[in-house]
Amino acid sequence: MPTTGYAPGAFDMFHIGHLNILQRASQECDHLVAGVVTDDVLLSVKGRKPVIPFEERLEIVRNIRCVAEAVTDQYEDKFRMWERLRFDVLFKGSDWRGTARAEALERKLSAVGARIRYFSYTTHTSSTLLRQRISLPSPGVLGELEPGPT
Amino acid sequence: MPTTGYAPGAFDMFHIGHLNILQRASQECDHLVAGVVTDDVLLSVKGRKPVIPFEERLEIVRNIRCVAEAVTDQYEDKFRMWERLRFDVLFKGSDWRGTARAEALERKLSAVGARIRYFSYTTHTSSTLLRQRISLPSPGVLGELEPGPT
Repeated sequence: MPTTGYAPGAFDMFHIGHLNILQRASQECDHLVAGVVTDDVLLSVKGRKPVIPFEERLEIVRNIRCVAEAVTDQYEDKFRMWERLRFDVLFKGSDWRGTARAEALERKLSAVGARIRYFSYTTHTSSTLLRQRISLPSPGVLGELEPGPT
Repeated sequence: MPTTGYAPGAFDMFHIGHLNILQRASQECDHLVAGVVTDDVLLSVKGRKPVIPFEERLEIVRNIRCVAEAVTDQYEDKFRMWERLRFDVLFKGSDWRGTARAEALERKLSAVGARIRYFSYTTHTSSTLLRQRISLPSPGVLGELEPGPT
């Protein structure tokens, strides 16, 4: 049976860390679906809006070679996406492993025959680092983006 | 005869404007080669270093679906890249059209049977706009990138 993998993320300011995760994920499944979370989900989960609008983030991820399909992810609870996609494996960052939410999701997925594969971040470019480099506050809510001091 | 197209650029902080140009270029040739200019060429031409290191810019462009091949472009003079790639058509932004350098290059390419196809920028996200949004100075030379005021 071909396996379907699901890799959700914000994919804001698409960088090498995103690409590496998608490539590693695609090597562990036959059909990689990338999920691009909406601005609302990102705001709710991370407490900030993205720099790049949703439609542009989706379009870029859709055009990455190893991505078979890109979809909108409007849920904090990834089991809702399982109900829609029926994926075999969910790819998540290892920083999430061991949290109460991760363990609850593992149980729900296990009950339907799916699992979570955790990836450690090995790249030296991350969204957080990029936000630091480009003088964006990493935590906290960003309002409308306007030119700052130069 | 299949046509080879060449689309050079910095592709710094890969965004929807880059993707649109590559997609339009790929529709006008059979084999699209994307050229990623080195940090040195960018510094020389634009007076600034990229935010994203060369190797990461190259790797991302290489993984865009419509790009058949991605190469290093270390020349300001794109005829040097013609000598290497023997492309049929060079894709450039229409802002460059009509300049003395563009006309000189058109003549040199015409003499070898190649041509320039100018694209107008129709997207609302550009590198310049992105740099403004994220508080980076657009012109001028950036030194080492350090976290700025938040």
